[in-house]
Amino acid sequence: MHGLTNQDLTLLFLAIGLLLLAARVCGELAQRLGQPSVLGELIAGILLGPTVLGAVMPDLPQTIFPAEGPVAVALDGVTTLAIVLFLLVAGMEVDLSVIWRQGRTALTVSLAGVVLPFGIGFLAGLTQPVALGMSPESDRLTFAVFLATAFSISALPVIARTLLDLNLYRSDLGMVVVGAAVLNDLFGWIVFAIVLGMMGEADDAAFGVAGTIVLTLAFALGVLTVGRWAVHRALPWIQAHTSWPGGVIGFALTLALLGAAFTEWIGVHGVFGAFLVGVAVGDSSHLRERTRAIISQFISFIFAPLFFASIGVTLDFARHFDLSLCVAVFLLACLGKVIGCTLGARWSGMSPPEAWAIGFGMNARGAMEIILGLLALRNGLINERMFVALVVMAIGTSMISGPLMRRVLRLEKPLRLGDVLHPKGFVKPLEAAERMAAIRQLVEAISDGRTLVRERIDPIVLAREALMSTGVGNGLAVPHGRIDGLTSPVVAVGISEAGLDFNAPDGLPAHLVFLILTPPDDDGAQVKILADIARTFSDPARAAAATRTRSMTEFRALLKAATGSEGQ
Amino acid sequence: MHGLTNQDLTLLFLAIGLLLLAARVCGELAQRLGQPSVLGELIAGILLGPTVLGAVMPDLPQTIFPAEGPVAVALDGVTTLAIVLFLLVAGMEVDLSVIWRQGRTALTVSLAGVVLPFGIGFLAGLTQPVALGMSPESDRLTFAVFLATAFSISALPVIARTLLDLNLYRSDLGMVVVGAAVLNDLFGWIVFAIVLGMMGEADDAAFGVAGTIVLTLAFALGVLTVGRWAVHRALPWIQAHTSWPGGVIGFALTLALLGAAFTEWIGVHGVFGAFLVGVAVGDSSHLRERTRAIISQFISFIFAPLFFASIGVTLDFARHFDLSLCVAVFLLACLGKVIGCTLGARWSGMSPPEAWAIGFGMNARGAMEIILGLLALRNGLINERMFVALVVMAIGTSMISGPLMRRVLRLEKPLRLGDVLHPKGFVKPLEAAERMAAIRQLVEAISDGRTLVRERIDPIVLAREALMSTGVGNGLAVPHGRIDGLTSPVVAVGISEAGLDFNAPDGLPAHLVFLILTPPDDDGAQVKILADIARTFSDPARAAAATRTRSMTEFRALLKAATGSEGQ
Repeated sequence: MHGLTNQDLTLLFLAIGLLLLAARVCGELAQRLGQPSVLGELIAGILLGPTVLGAVMPDLPQTIFPAEGPVAVALDGVTTLAIVLFLLVAGMEVDLSVIWRQGRTALTVSLAGVVLPFGIGFLAGLTQPVALGMSPESDRLTFAVFLATAFSISALPVIARTLLDLNLYRSDLGMVVVGAAVLNDLFGWIVFAIVLGMMGEADDAAFGVAGTIVLTLAFALGVLTVGRWAVHRALPWIQAHTSWPGGVIGFALTLALLGAAFTEWIGVHGVFGAFLVGVAVGDSSHLRERTRAIISQFISFIFAPLFFASIGVTLDFARHFDLSLCVAVFLLACLGKVIGCTLGARWSGMSPPEAWAIGFGMNARGAMEIILGLLALRNGLINERMFVALVVMAIGTSMISGPLMRRVLRLEKPLRLGDVLHPKGFVKPLEAAERMAAIRQLVEAISDGRTLVRERIDPIVLAREALMSTGVGNGLAVPHGRIDGLTSPVVAVGISEAGLDFNAPDGLPAHLVFLILTPPDDDGAQVKILADIARTFSDPARAAAATRTRSMTEFRALLKAATGSEGQ
Repeated sequence: MHGLTNQDLTLLFLAIGLLLLAARVCGELAQRLGQPSVLGELIAGILLGPTVLGAVMPDLPQTIFPAEGPVAVALDGVTTLAIVLFLLVAGMEVDLSVIWRQGRTALTVSLAGVVLPFGIGFLAGLTQPVALGMSPESDRLTFAVFLATAFSISALPVIARTLLDLNLYRSDLGMVVVGAAVLNDLFGWIVFAIVLGMMGEADDAAFGVAGTIVLTLAFALGVLTVGRWAVHRALPWIQAHTSWPGGVIGFALTLALLGAAFTEWIGVHGVFGAFLVGVAVGDSSHLRERTRAIISQFISFIFAPLFFASIGVTLDFARHFDLSLCVAVFLLACLGKVIGCTLGARWSGMSPPEAWAIGFGMNARGAMEIILGLLALRNGLINERMFVALVVMAIGTSMISGPLMRRVLRLEKPLRLGDVLHPKGFVKPLEAAERMAAIRQLVEAISDGRTLVRERIDPIVLAREALMSTGVGNGLAVPHGRIDGLTSPVVAVGISEAGLDFNAPDGLPAHLVFLILTPPDDDGAQVKILADIARTFSDPARAAAATRTRSMTEFRALLKAATGSEGQ
């Protein structure tokens, strides 16, 4: 236990702290821009590593994130642990029953979406290994199988999030995509485990190629049948007899670590074992929502960012960036996946727009591809150029997936209250004693004399209010109007502790007054905002909490928490 | 990033997986026996380490938990990270406002409870350093200050849990104890940081003793004033503008790690920085309960067990066990602390039983003492014998704290439904069509012909039921009776999906029927069980969930989850 000195520990804490800070900040920024957070997390590492910080101060990244010595080993241990736990969570998101429910369609989409990219990857790998960045130590066949896998894998977590964003998760189309992606992921990881086994020859693997492959398949089969059954039986017992939620969390993590140790021992990476354990554990109906949330939130928000940021700090992305290789990999990967899945969906009788949406949805590679690429890089299967190209492909396919699905399905983004709040639109207390004066006070708060002119807005909203009062019950009132010259909706909120009479159907006074201003051609914005307000504050406890907020920041925090708790 | 080979990773996953498994299992067993879980977690490490497993198979512990090489370094990194995060959570439990609310009493108890043990420890350390296990490299003054700190520190988390168990947490007495313990912990950690600084001379510390001490005090003061204020301002902004709950969790962990890096850099251990950051973060009213729960559950159930178990695997507790030293340390520690705090409480006007209860409550040392001891051992301040004695003292004081408080205050343990359920007492479906037959069916299920004789029980419970029907509303019925020969209460539960008419005041049929049998001199057991049933199933959603359970195991799991969610 005397491995790390005082100085080592200083560096270790600093390194992990900085990685986490940068990863969270950049991840949030990426999400803000509508991009996957893994993009931001990777960029965080690139900023802190030799690519950017190293270009300005050549020695600094090497000092904070050394490549050798005890700090490097400890950091490697922590990030490897992080990725194993991340795969546990990724596995937990896999719901095998979706496959049975969607049956043939999912199977067809998945098969077509694997066969075509697998074929393309395999042929490309066999014929052009050097151009496609095969590492000199590797052999052509192993490389071809790897490339085939890399092209045919998909990324369930990214796909699930995209579908949630588009409100498609519970639709038939969404279920087909998820079912196909689940099959795809299982297939991809098993084949990749075999690839790792094929490379095992070079190492001091205990079993040889054939042994590793047989053990891998046996392990996968065992975990998904007997293991799944045993977990299903054990979970209620553990919930009954151990402290909650620690017993179940400890059980899941222990299984994941032992699964990782086993797969590592048979010559395949630990992520494979953790992923399969995740599938077995997550599939059980006995795993409570809350326990699941604690595990996945802690791991997705802490361990995953740490891991993805750590990729960037040891590799110079600029030096290994090869534009033509990136373009080639990106095009080959999209070609096989999109066309394969779209054809599969058409064969199953989906309409052309739906089939294309499925193709674009399945095309997202996200975090899984990056993990696959990193393992291939570390095992000497591909070179740095190819790794960077795979990362670019993974991020690129994830970024275009949502927008393209939205385009072919002609979907609109849902409007949320939080997106349209005016920065100055928080008025507390609403001093007015009656509703017309309260509306004037709200208009006053956001008037800027340019697009929002008090004298122009007042008459419109007050006339609307006079026509029919906008108290909607539950202590809410929603005066509104369409304002010429406005280009996007604007909302102000006023809080009255005493309550104002807005003639609500339930006779209760309004404590929360939302002034909703929309452009003349508002395209349904008014209705969407009203719906979001009604949905958000249908919970009286939340409405009461909202009246206690003291600033726009606190009000936003409340909205955030409300959205967060529904997303689970 | 090429630090760990395939074989290293196998060992690392295996080591962490085994530590976690053993720690969780032994921790649960300890709790089951009414002992602090840290006791079980330490024993888990002792079982896996040289003390027990090594005595049977001398090479095995050394293979799984090597003392040198990359795996040792990685494991050290992970466990050090674990302890830093554990101190973040310990700090988060500190509520500074308790001190102000309890004012003078807490201050008096805390001062008296620090001065006396500090004096005893200091004198003992100065006069008997060799007998008390001073390491040869250390100097007498530093050792004396360390011993003084070790005797005067308390363990807020253990104390808080004991008070919760005894239902005293919200009482005046509980608040005095918590307030005094908070002051005590702050004082203890700052003095200990100074001790670490005093030893810094030997290392290549950047600042010298005086510099380290000044910086330590400045850091503590800064974090608790400016830092606390800044966190208080930042938290609502972060909740408003980042994803929930990841933004806040990431923020807290980043701060803790950077605080740890800073204190490590000035020559004090990282746990000190993490602890102070925890105090600053946890003190903010803007930290939502749910976020707090996610952080503390994940860390307390995963990282803390991992750390405490890891202590045992590198040290042979049997070889370094010195009975007379253990007894001496234990007695000296108790003497100063119990008498000091009891005197302080008497001076503040508490009654003698209350004053003694405060003394015994404050005497618990728990996890904090072990961490202190481990740091002293690692820094060459004490030898292994003294470390073992400190661990024994920490565990011993924690174990006697609750029972002694209960004894002097003449308290009883609350009876929970889960503790009295008969193993065979789950009947589903209740086939009877009316209540008397249903009661017979429940009695039948648990009859064993010895203490529980059907023919003796039936008349008693049926007569009671006939006298006045036991439907209590909310779909619950609680037939009951006192049975001769029974030594402890027994409960059986029957579930009727159709519902049975138990003449409930609300007219609703009973779906959950609890048969409650108590000894003749039941000492209020009946009332306590009734209260626990009413409280647990007052939530209609939980009652409905209970009717859907299919076995005693599932029913227990539901009770567990109910208790867990209230404990937060």
